Amino acid sequence: MPTILGQNQYGKAENRVVKIVRDGDTHHIKDLNVSVALSGDMDDVHYSGSNANVLPTDTTKNTVFAFAKEHGIESAEQFGIHLARHFVSSQEPIHRARIRIEEYAWERIATSDANSKFIGADEVQHSFARKGMETRVSQITYDGENWEIISGLKDLTVMNSTNSEFWGYVKDKYTTLKEAYDRILATDVSARWRYNWTSDEQPMPNWEKSYEQARKHMLHAFAETYSLSLQQTLYQMGSRIINSRSEIDEIRFSLPNNHHFLVDLEPFGLKNDHEVYFAADRPYGLIEATVLRDGVEPKIPVDMTNL
Amino acid sequence: MPTILGQNQYGKAENRVVKIVRDGDTHHIKDLNVSVALSGDMDDVHYSGSNANVLPTDTTKNTVFAFAKEHGIESAEQFGIHLARHFVSSQEPIHRARIRIEEYAWERIATSDANSKFIGADEVQHSFARKGMETRVSQITYDGENWEIISGLKDLTVMNSTNSEFWGYVKDKYTTLKEAYDRILATDVSARWRYNWTSDEQPMPNWEKSYEQARKHMLHAFAETYSLSLQQTLYQMGSRIINSRSEIDEIRFSLPNNHHFLVDLEPFGLKNDHEVYFAADRPYGLIEATVLRDGVEPKIPVDMTNL
Amino acid sequence: MPTILGQNQYGKAENRVVKIVRDGDTHHIKDLNVSVALSGDMDDVHYSGSNANVLPTDTTKNTVFAFAKEHGIESAEQFGIHLARHFVSSQEPIHRARIRIEEYAWERIATSDANSKFIGADEVQHSFARKGMETRVSQITYDGENWEIISGLKDLTVMNSTNSEFWGYVKDKYTTLKEAYDRILATDVSARWRYNWTSDEQPMPNWEKSYEQARKHMLHAFAETYSLSLQQTLYQMGSRIINSRSEIDEIRFSLPNNHHFLVDLEPFGLKNDHEVYFAADRPYGLIEATVLRDGVEPKIPVDMTNL
Amino acid sequence: MPTILGQNQYGKAENRVVKIVRDGDTHHIKDLNVSVALSGDMDDVHYSGSNANVLPTDTTKNTVFAFAKEHGIESAEQFGIHLARHFVSSQEPIHRARIRIEEYAWERIATSDANSKFIGADEVQHSFARKGMETRVSQITYDGENWEIISGLKDLTVMNSTNSEFWGYVKDKYTTLKEAYDRILATDVSARWRYNWTSDEQPMPNWEKSYEQARKHMLHAFAETYSLSLQQTLYQMGSRIINSRSEIDEIRFSLPNNHHFLVDLEPFGLKNDHEVYFAADRPYGLIEATVLRDGVEPKIPVDMTNL
Repeated sequence: MPTILGQNQYGKAENRVVKIVRDGDTHHIKDLNVSVALSGDMDDVHYSGSNANVLPTDTTKNTVFAFAKEHGIESAEQFGIHLARHFVSSQEPIHRARIRIEEYAWERIATSDANSKFIGADEVQHSFARKGMETRVSQITYDGENWEIISGLKDLTVMNSTNSEFWGYVKDKYTTLKEAYDRILATDVSARWRYNWTSDEQPMPNWEKSYEQARKHMLHAFAETYSLSLQQTLYQMGSRIINSRSEIDEIRFSLPNNHHFLVDLEPFGLKNDHEVYFAADRPYGLIEATVLRDGVEPKIPVDMTNL
Repeated sequence: MPTILGQNQYGKAENRVVKIVRDGDTHHIKDLNVSVALSGDMDDVHYSGSNANVLPTDTTKNTVFAFAKEHGIESAEQFGIHLARHFVSSQEPIHRARIRIEEYAWERIATSDANSKFIGADEVQHSFARKGMETRVSQITYDGENWEIISGLKDLTVMNSTNSEFWGYVKDKYTTLKEAYDRILATDVSARWRYNWTSDEQPMPNWEKSYEQARKHMLHAFAETYSLSLQQTLYQMGSRIINSRSEIDEIRFSLPNNHHFLVDLEPFGLKNDHEVYFAADRPYGLIEATVLRDGVEPKIPVDMTNL
Repeated sequence: MPTILGQNQYGKAENRVVKIVRDGDTHHIKDLNVSVALSGDMDDVHYSGSNANVLPTDTTKNTVFAFAKEHGIESAEQFGIHLARHFVSSQEPIHRARIRIEEYAWERIATSDANSKFIGADEVQHSFARKGMETRVSQITYDGENWEIISGLKDLTVMNSTNSEFWGYVKDKYTTLKEAYDRILATDVSARWRYNWTSDEQPMPNWEKSYEQARKHMLHAFAETYSLSLQQTLYQMGSRIINSRSEIDEIRFSLPNNHHFLVDLEPFGLKNDHEVYFAADRPYGLIEATVLRDGVEPKIPVDMTNL
Repeated sequence: MPTILGQNQYGKAENRVVKIVRDGDTHHIKDLNVSVALSGDMDDVHYSGSNANVLPTDTTKNTVFAFAKEHGIESAEQFGIHLARHFVSSQEPIHRARIRIEEYAWERIATSDANSKFIGADEVQHSFARKGMETRVSQITYDGENWEIISGLKDLTVMNSTNSEFWGYVKDKYTTLKEAYDRILATDVSARWRYNWTSDEQPMPNWEKSYEQARKHMLHAFAETYSLSLQQTLYQMGSRIINSRSEIDEIRFSLPNNHHFLVDLEPFGLKNDHEVYFAADRPYGLIEATVLRDGVEPKIPVDMTNL
């Protein structure tokens, strides 16, 4: 046979599971989008179409929903760990499971303000509104021995309306850009960080707290960095997380530079003193980099967009 | 000529204007997407291609950016009023201007928590994160005499995890649906309300406050209604706004019923006591209706999606 | 009660029905997205939540799928006519039904070329590829007596690389645009045309042929018009259809002007003789107009985007 | 410093360049979306914000547009080779350039049919319509010595309405799926193939012909394979390309299983003999695999979605 099979994986993608936990009248929501990818002894199904080693993708879907009941959803990471362990340990032909999860946040609708003449807030503990555009993500991979947990977020749009400059760059024959001493710096943060928890022997991090803290440190670094380049801001965001969270060893960012161009109002006899900007769509700068704890090996793929 | 020209309009759509106002070190953002549509004596440009009556769409774009400087952006509604008045009053062939605006909300990044060892919060008054998925919208129309102001929002996703039933409906030969006595009720609110401010003679509403209050009343009604149908909830949301805000006479909703189906876990020996749901994409129920102050004529178009 | 209910409608939106017809080994596909909207005596469900007059949206979904079997799908229009008639005639509280349909086109995968050493083309009559970005649309409305049929298409992207000019326009203090004597004219055609078939007494048009011919005439007019404005091209496209198709009385277009800006290459010592363009996203011109057979009343709504 | 910088790259993404070549009255279009990513000696800009080694992303944009004039666009691959070579060879701090290109196809609007009473086809050689939903893609990488060229396509939606089965799979306690002996097989093909052209010393493939042939072989294999699993079909598609095209050594697919579920019409007294299907959105199966010429090392990343 002149061709052979290389790396392969399969499973059910984008299982939209919503779990409601009722604590008396107070309800809690977990709203996830779970994708399963399995790999192992799968040569036959590719070469001959024999499904003898194939657990149907439909079954992986059923497992996601059943596990939401059997194990609950404490955190996206913990839920993914339950699922990955199950697939690898229960099916001999499956050697590796990768679970990807998106989590959508909800916040309670507050009804207890002074103007409300209706039912009080304590009686409306089952009403929620979607919170923010950002999505929390996690990827849990297990090969029967070791764990790799990469978490993060995407679509967190941020802007500094000042404290950003850009000058002193290389100028070649195609350079027309004017240097900027006060510009808007805006981006949609996509970040993935890798935990150094890799084995059942180690104590497990508190996934929920770790996410909240990593997110907070990243935002603070964005706000507090006086920026000479988006690369510099990126590095500050990454090193702030690693310096603050001992459970995280590596972080990769993909940061579009959402250009806001100062509009030329002089033709209309107006001065634009860093007031009126045009928010452009395309093209955009795209800055991508990994920040590492000194001494560790990088493992997050360079192209992590769908991770 | 066997064919004639009917209603027509033209202009520049989706001008993305961002305005920064600096109040000392404290910055304020207005982030708008402004679309201009003009109509009037435009037969010639359609019949013969003569542009003698055509103000270029490029000029309408320039005007949007120039007005952000000249008039500032107090509110989307006020900004649209400035623009509409200008086009109708400055160009004789233009008899009607319609300005549509989407507004994206931003909130400050808080850095003043106890854990921050960096610059204090008072020094970071120029850092923002995009707030929520929802978009505020407004449509301002002017014909040289009367104003029509329709405002609202879209993509406000909400959910009640209980207090919703659905039963007692018509059953025909194609009906298979089981009655539900405790279901999830979830929707993406798209609402447009019409102000009874129509003339420069009347005192102008406080647009910012009116929006905040209308949004609040709508959310409270959603949370507090024990629902026997999404139609009933819709009506409660609309009447709450009209009863609470004298400046609003009419409101139209388009509410998808975002189905959350209880997953059948019995094949796996599990009982699903209103815990695990599958969030479906398509198809979805779609409930649309207008709620009116008694005695007023409806004017919001039945299809208001892009309004 | 100080508030009342206005116009309302409900139903199941976006039912994705695919119908395969097997003519021996030769298969035929119809791939539709069907949305049902019903209205009638629906006050109670809004005021009190009583569903006594409500045919569930789930039932309207079932009906769509059952009718694909019972009546087949000869054309989108004919399928919508079957559905609308059924809802209005079988349920007394329902006074009006509106069916909206999107149709996706497929073409056969040709395998009969000389290089193929495999199974011949006549044996592969069940393999298809999606054809084009464009979507055919139709809206069928019935009130128990009269029909309104509006059909059309959206997302048909076209471009003329020359034979387009734009000059002689109004210049005010905000005008900076340079006149253009040779520009690219590009747009995504969204068109809706209304048939003068309104009653079961009239002979029904051939819906499939009418669509093909209307589309063809529109494209020819786009290609053959030497354009002094997009408005002029629009009018030519509309009048060509009405002059060529006696069953169509009215057509409305929404045409974005997809700007292609000539890139200034002079800073690099290069001359750009209408060769290199930047395809911009936003903002874009937006030209909308109705073309009518002389003497008929316009009935297509001005905002027809979702129609 | 406890943190260090890992892999990084930057550049201008999504430059939308359209090139018109005029061959007398006959025009030709190349419509590309070009993204530049550069890497090299970039530590300083991350650590201190010094831009001394940074060629601005704006300059990379200008270069894309200037090269469309200077070198023309013979093919996406050839255009990317010009750009990558330029960045690496002209800027000492840049050690590696990666160019990603999407290409959108256009076809001429035919006006020469018998019914046209207007200008003949030979006079309308500048009118085009966008062809298909599919997008051709290419990634060109150069490190000053070796080339890596990966090309392919995405969003090519195909369907077999029969000749697909799925049975004989593993059944565990979460399995409820019924075996299928005649089902629809539908997917959106995303494929990336790697060329064995890696050095300027080798003769360069004919990129345009290679793309056309690879696409054709892939479609034929899809149409002609009697499928027992989507994995089997995938493998046939890949091996057909490698066996037919000596310049291609490796191909990776990402194939969603676009589920079409047979609708149960029995409650309505109807038999559904493989006629009426519900086209589902989410979840979907996702099958991903690499097919290799025997003996070569795989180099296409496992997650190639954005490649």
